[in-house]
Amino acid sequence: MPSPSTDDMSPAEFRDAAARLTEWAAHYLETVEQRRVGHAVVPGLVRSALPTELPADGASFEVMLGEVERVLMPGVTHWNHPGFMAYFPSSGSGPGVLGEYMTALLNQQAMLWSTSPAASELEDVVLTWLCQLLGLPPQFEGVCHEGGSASNLHAMVAALAATVPEFRARGLAGRGSLPRPCVYASSHAHASIAKAVVLLGMGDEALRTVPVDDQFRMRPADLAARMAADRRAGWLPVAVVATVGTTSTGSVDPVAAVVQVCAAERVWCHVDASYGGAAALVSDCATLFDGVASADSIVVNPHKWLFTPVDLSVFYCRRLDVLRELLHVSPEYLAGGDPPGVRNVKDAGMALGRRFRALKLWMVLRYFGAAGLQTRIAAHLALAQELAAWVDADPGFERLAPVSLSVVCFRAVPNHLRLEDNALDDFNAELLRRVNADGHTLLSSTRLRGCLALRVAIGHVRTSDRHVARAWESIRASADALLREYQAAGWRR
Amino acid sequence: MPSPSTDDMSPAEFRDAAARLTEWAAHYLETVEQRRVGHAVVPGLVRSALPTELPADGASFEVMLGEVERVLMPGVTHWNHPGFMAYFPSSGSGPGVLGEYMTALLNQQAMLWSTSPAASELEDVVLTWLCQLLGLPPQFEGVCHEGGSASNLHAMVAALAATVPEFRARGLAGRGSLPRPCVYASSHAHASIAKAVVLLGMGDEALRTVPVDDQFRMRPADLAARMAADRRAGWLPVAVVATVGTTSTGSVDPVAAVVQVCAAERVWCHVDASYGGAAALVSDCATLFDGVASADSIVVNPHKWLFTPVDLSVFYCRRLDVLRELLHVSPEYLAGGDPPGVRNVKDAGMALGRRFRALKLWMVLRYFGAAGLQTRIAAHLALAQELAAWVDADPGFERLAPVSLSVVCFRAVPNHLRLEDNALDDFNAELLRRVNADGHTLLSSTRLRGCLALRVAIGHVRTSDRHVARAWESIRASADALLREYQAAGWRR
Repeated sequence: MPSPSTDDMSPAEFRDAAARLTEWAAHYLETVEQRRVGHAVVPGLVRSALPTELPADGASFEVMLGEVERVLMPGVTHWNHPGFMAYFPSSGSGPGVLGEYMTALLNQQAMLWSTSPAASELEDVVLTWLCQLLGLPPQFEGVCHEGGSASNLHAMVAALAATVPEFRARGLAGRGSLPRPCVYASSHAHASIAKAVVLLGMGDEALRTVPVDDQFRMRPADLAARMAADRRAGWLPVAVVATVGTTSTGSVDPVAAVVQVCAAERVWCHVDASYGGAAALVSDCATLFDGVASADSIVVNPHKWLFTPVDLSVFYCRRLDVLRELLHVSPEYLAGGDPPGVRNVKDAGMALGRRFRALKLWMVLRYFGAAGLQTRIAAHLALAQELAAWVDADPGFERLAPVSLSVVCFRAVPNHLRLEDNALDDFNAELLRRVNADGHTLLSSTRLRGCLALRVAIGHVRTSDRHVARAWESIRASADALLREYQAAGWRR
Repeated sequence: MPSPSTDDMSPAEFRDAAARLTEWAAHYLETVEQRRVGHAVVPGLVRSALPTELPADGASFEVMLGEVERVLMPGVTHWNHPGFMAYFPSSGSGPGVLGEYMTALLNQQAMLWSTSPAASELEDVVLTWLCQLLGLPPQFEGVCHEGGSASNLHAMVAALAATVPEFRARGLAGRGSLPRPCVYASSHAHASIAKAVVLLGMGDEALRTVPVDDQFRMRPADLAARMAADRRAGWLPVAVVATVGTTSTGSVDPVAAVVQVCAAERVWCHVDASYGGAAALVSDCATLFDGVASADSIVVNPHKWLFTPVDLSVFYCRRLDVLRELLHVSPEYLAGGDPPGVRNVKDAGMALGRRFRALKLWMVLRYFGAAGLQTRIAAHLALAQELAAWVDADPGFERLAPVSLSVVCFRAVPNHLRLEDNALDDFNAELLRRVNADGHTLLSSTRLRGCLALRVAIGHVRTSDRHVARAWESIRASADALLREYQAAGWRR
């Protein structure tokens, strides 16, 4: 029981509780594959099992662990299960988990260099390592953010600050009838771009959606044409977002061509490689990254495909001083905290307080090593190709997008059922439901050219060939069973 | 050593490594008071001890722990030391650390309800508990954010969305010569308000700094007068930020009066109680919170004075639908993920992906219990009053601000030295340096009415009377020693 005094949990009690949690955690990792990947609750079940107000008396950690097991665990969707292939992967890898544990213990807050020289300098070091691993030139300076949405927001505001005269002083509201800024992204760009445009006061009318080609890649000619038309119509193009690894299919925009358009038009080129960036570690993928090194800013999320628990996104920028000039503050309560000349990044972004996110990334990079990371990412790329080959070899399925990285999109096409498109969507929606219900695999979906697509995203550190094989087996078996039901029902449902 | 395979650290290896880390962590907690609070490095020392690129081969956790001890620990500023009284407190409390450990292990990503019902519903439950503890009515809906800067940004954008017609579509840039929005905060408001105003495209010309009274509280009459003058000059007031617990002194703006002005003017009233909010748990402080329950939005940071490791800020809003309407996105790759009617908060803020921050808050609240939290915060308030009384009783010191919460600002006034103000500042700056150099206490400073003030902020969960007494003893002894040096040097330096 917690002491009734004014103190923290004692170190001795902490030692016992942490040992108990470690046993629980190791058991979780040993047995997670025996759990169903998906959660096992209906809406409201978790809430209803908890009291409506906080009890006055505290509880022991043992009691709390029991409540976690009984109340929370049924409501956990097991992102840390090797069969989790929905959305994008995220791994609570061993070294990543230990990194977070240590981060919380040391509880560094790196707003100034002096409030944590370790956090400030380690962030600089590991983001430099990652910059090298990604094949980027040293002109890119990195900053850790919470997620890709935050990183993309900072890219967009940097573009505004670099392009709109007197942006710090007058913003967008003080421009009267001067040209309104606009931003370009493909129809497959991430939704956070749309959010950023609204948050930053551009209005969603300012977002230009550039069409994609038959491989879901931005068409640079359409980009250039649209930009020219916008200029004629009195708009001020400020940024283009090229995506390396779109969310729906993992497609890769032709960054080199986009960079050329941006250079000619003096527009900020931002590369959203939140998911896809990790593939830059694998030399076979080099051509996908052509031009990326010439962008103005790039986002890569280690909490996606670099085995780091959420949250950690890295924003790389060639011109971070644009943000520093925009966002610097120097309140009296921080004055004099730092010796002159040290790097602190409190002015390079929205946040003042910053947790020691670099520690877990350091642990992950250091534990696996550069070669170990490359091997793992290459393995995921190969698994995705293998799954794509299985899909292609099966006449009951069709692939709906190229596999550029580790996302595979396809659908069942029980063509002899002569289903219309709507009915095919229903068939595949039900197929998805059944695959997810069997508990070994969790997939998500998207829509491509109007069709519902099953979507398999590979990249969890513990996902291996047998997990992908099992997923495919489950998909085929579920499709077969569903087909038989359709046939028994006279091909109607 | 990590396996050369494509797998994660094995569960057995994890068990060993975590046990090793737990032993290290418990030892840290047992001995942290024997460490100097401040770091022990010069700029560049941490960086120079690390390789310039990531080694190809991985390292064992044992090797990494050795590197942490040798390379990082000298660069750690010990925020988790009970003698840390600089800036604002933040506690890596036992239950908070264990909560983060479990959060990383389960690695929940709560963008949709279904991607973690446990995280989605627990967030709702614990923020409801906290809402009750803070004495707020149930109309306030809470969302977890990274920090106070993010929460304040969301408050400001909500105010824009609520006030500026067609804000989602046209933003601020599409308003031509219509009135420009402006925001009001006292001269003692947090710097994140200024950042938010710039980030959101209002331009820093849009920030109105309202004067404070002799207790560093916003003057409501000046607020009303300034707002009227701005309207006459063609501006559009959108928000007022009242602070409960300013950063420099912990002063509390007269929220009830500010709320009245806002209501009359139909302007969004935001209360920044990032630090001070915790005091609402203590009934003696009730009058400080008069009017807060009538605000439109409130931010409280459990990672400050509620014993939760960084990062976790809570944004409470009466009208969260304003943000949902502004920021909702519905990309195809998320469609169909949730059953109808569930609460998810991906559209109530900037972030799509959201880590399971509520788990550590639940652990902290549950472990200490409501009464335990109240006892601890009341103790900190009492310690601050005690320190203030010591300062007041000592003719060699003068207090520079009232102690509304747990921040005490004062300076040494060796008056018989007949020092001019500049020289007094030098004396106090040197005093601060010496107190911090002795290693038992870490203080920060601010400037009040042009004078350098030493600033003691109490609120770490393990800070007790003996730590505050030791801090005061150190301050007095250092001042005495410095005074003798001044006298020996003929009262000149």
